[in-house]
Amino acid sequence: MPGLTPDRGKGIVLAGIVALSLGISLVASAQEPEKVIRSIFDEALTTNVAWSNLTYLCKNTKGRIDGSPAAAEAVEFTRQALINAGADTVWLQQVPVPKWERGYEHCRMISALLGSEDLNISALGLSGGTDHSGIIAKVIEVHDFDELTALGRKQVEGRIVFFNRPADSKLINAMAGYGSAVNQRMQGPSEASKLGALGVIMRSATQAMDDFPHTGTTRFEEGVNKIPAVAVSTVGAEKLSSWLKRDPSLNLHLVSECRNYPDTWSYNVVGELKGTTRAKEIITAGGHLDAWDIGEGAQDDGGGCIQAIETIRIFKTLGIKPKRTIRAVMFMNEEMTGTGGRTYASEARRKGETHYAAIESDRGVLSPRGFSFDADSLRLARLQGLSKYFLPYNIRDFDKGGGGSDIAPLKQIGTLQIGYIPDIQRYFWYHHSANDTLENVNERELQLGSAAIASLIYLIDLLDL
Amino acid sequence: MPGLTPDRGKGIVLAGIVALSLGISLVASAQEPEKVIRSIFDEALTTNVAWSNLTYLCKNTKGRIDGSPAAAEAVEFTRQALINAGADTVWLQQVPVPKWERGYEHCRMISALLGSEDLNISALGLSGGTDHSGIIAKVIEVHDFDELTALGRKQVEGRIVFFNRPADSKLINAMAGYGSAVNQRMQGPSEASKLGALGVIMRSATQAMDDFPHTGTTRFEEGVNKIPAVAVSTVGAEKLSSWLKRDPSLNLHLVSECRNYPDTWSYNVVGELKGTTRAKEIITAGGHLDAWDIGEGAQDDGGGCIQAIETIRIFKTLGIKPKRTIRAVMFMNEEMTGTGGRTYASEARRKGETHYAAIESDRGVLSPRGFSFDADSLRLARLQGLSKYFLPYNIRDFDKGGGGSDIAPLKQIGTLQIGYIPDIQRYFWYHHSANDTLENVNERELQLGSAAIASLIYLIDLLDL
Repeated sequence: MPGLTPDRGKGIVLAGIVALSLGISLVASAQEPEKVIRSIFDEALTTNVAWSNLTYLCKNTKGRIDGSPAAAEAVEFTRQALINAGADTVWLQQVPVPKWERGYEHCRMISALLGSEDLNISALGLSGGTDHSGIIAKVIEVHDFDELTALGRKQVEGRIVFFNRPADSKLINAMAGYGSAVNQRMQGPSEASKLGALGVIMRSATQAMDDFPHTGTTRFEEGVNKIPAVAVSTVGAEKLSSWLKRDPSLNLHLVSECRNYPDTWSYNVVGELKGTTRAKEIITAGGHLDAWDIGEGAQDDGGGCIQAIETIRIFKTLGIKPKRTIRAVMFMNEEMTGTGGRTYASEARRKGETHYAAIESDRGVLSPRGFSFDADSLRLARLQGLSKYFLPYNIRDFDKGGGGSDIAPLKQIGTLQIGYIPDIQRYFWYHHSANDTLENVNERELQLGSAAIASLIYLIDLLDL
Repeated sequence: MPGLTPDRGKGIVLAGIVALSLGISLVASAQEPEKVIRSIFDEALTTNVAWSNLTYLCKNTKGRIDGSPAAAEAVEFTRQALINAGADTVWLQQVPVPKWERGYEHCRMISALLGSEDLNISALGLSGGTDHSGIIAKVIEVHDFDELTALGRKQVEGRIVFFNRPADSKLINAMAGYGSAVNQRMQGPSEASKLGALGVIMRSATQAMDDFPHTGTTRFEEGVNKIPAVAVSTVGAEKLSSWLKRDPSLNLHLVSECRNYPDTWSYNVVGELKGTTRAKEIITAGGHLDAWDIGEGAQDDGGGCIQAIETIRIFKTLGIKPKRTIRAVMFMNEEMTGTGGRTYASEARRKGETHYAAIESDRGVLSPRGFSFDADSLRLARLQGLSKYFLPYNIRDFDKGGGGSDIAPLKQIGTLQIGYIPDIQRYFWYHHSANDTLENVNERELQLGSAAIASLIYLIDLLDL
């Protein structure tokens, strides 16, 4: 086994001896890594537990936005699923979460020249609401904040600002394409509000051209009036833009009876498989349990949660006994304000825990391409050395890159950040929309991802990378 | 530019001079390959022609099995699409095709012990039919031909043979998984018929566990009685197997009023972009136009046809003038007996054409992973050298492997065989089933594949690989 220090070699020999004396339960750790990984993939590919768990999450806890009854049930379901998976200990970690509720929504273009037509919209998380009769106002279309600033208060005040910059389809990394548009959603409403806008309608941040609005959270700066803000489908955005060209003085009727409430409490769900010889060092596999209320949160990120549970289940089923403690974590509130990830990290700091590595699956559960590592060049090279184990599974991408927003706070205590990278070309067809359903997940792709994540954790622990 | 012979270098310089004197039309060929490839991807990713063409094929020529009215309309539509794409010449090539028509289908388990339940079935192409009352017979379950042979005529005669070997989910290459089961469909009915079986029901060759039957062609040996033969969904196969365990003497009622007719005529559709300096050398991009009648033939293989048309359209739109002649070919009758591919090759031989290379897209139009090349090690190494151009597009797989069944007959005249390889993990959820619809194709994945194929053809032509 190339690259092993004497200490590691000894560990393996010892494990072998222990396995011989204790029987079969430790047999996996004495095997060649190639064989263990093959058994991990076989287990994932021939068992329907992951699919069954994801089906439950999608169909029975749809709408599991922070503080919702569905989120409470998702916490309870995954707690039970972790016990069934064989976790030694399962507990809930209290997390403060915002409480925002969607209400009645309606959007219609009204033009004496062109007639009227409804647009498919979805209110942004944490946006302000209207009353039941809504607002009726002229629309001003912009594509970036410079354009908005140039217009100034005089032209923005009393109007609805329409952010209509498309996600850049030409960017091959679909996540970068999303990134090219998403600031309109995150900062757009706050910027428009500062100039006196009555409301914001933003083109959905997606490469898809269809009639699904894609929601997501928005952030108002401290002291800025929380105005109504909605996403419109890309088809709707094209329509609104084309109507505005023909009748710039058309009015938009916008109703969004969403409401912001005081913060409330929810939970991260944590399940642990105790390590054998280095139990104080923790490796975390995580996804987030909260999901946008308009979809089922299948790709984002029910599947990521189920894959984390699968790591525990597969290790337990195959009798793999890791040296380090393996944790599967369902983070709450990734979508709104990220308190789940921050709570997990601050609890770790408070307890003086050592977090060796963390891997997040929050880019959909599509076919695996590889992993990204937020590591210095020396450690990156060691991690890239693992790619040989994944070649038989056509998992070839071992690149430098981030982990994910839920595990990012662990970076402050020196934890290696790893992102699970599936093929995300189609991801933004589903992301944050009513189209994010179980039917748009493929069971085999979910399984392959579970196996990839479990295998990487197994290797990092085995080889002390 | 590494690896160029003086002749190739001169060609590029000459192209540059010609471009300067003729203006912009040749400008692409004088550019760095990296820039041309970037422009190919940009064009593919920002144009909806491919999606619009595929939508037409799926929604207006559904059921385009050999000899059907829908197939005739698909021929006419793609002929027009090739003209619109800018092909210099477009023609039809007459192809003899079998004519088989599906009829009323029904399958029910009847058991005095267990009750009765219907199973979702789909007759296999070229299988024999029943009359309207169908056949009612006992079922004998087998998993391979050895088992069938061991049972012998005594136990098979007068029964319905149930082939129930699952596709091996553990094989990472999903095509190999399919390959592990598909001989039950291809040879199963013929083998069962030889032993006097009344009919065959086979478990669909797919890794999916759902209620869609997956059809496909079957082949009866010369002189063997063409018995009724149907595919049952995997869920149905599990049900039948479990019922048989509890009541081995249950009867199956099988109705399949399909009919075999005398052969008829159809067409390959061919569109050509004439080469500049080596017009007599042809590079073919192809997919097959015929598709199973129960689906829309979106992944298999409408998308492959549209990607071939896209090569012509993209070259024409960008002013790329290849040295060699580029052909887009919609092959007829890939699914039943492969006469389209054989006719194309025999016409090429008859006319003494030089076919430099051929690429086939018939593994779905999912996200691109790369290409397979059926080349000797020297040429393979040269072709693998192209992978550097595809790294920015995350297309990394340049492996040895086959092209595809439609271009395979060209191998006899020495044509390089290339297969376009998308990520096929989810492919067999759609393949040959009612689930192969436009809705299960992602526009961006279709576009990325078109760009990958066009870029590879551009490079092979430019660099004389």
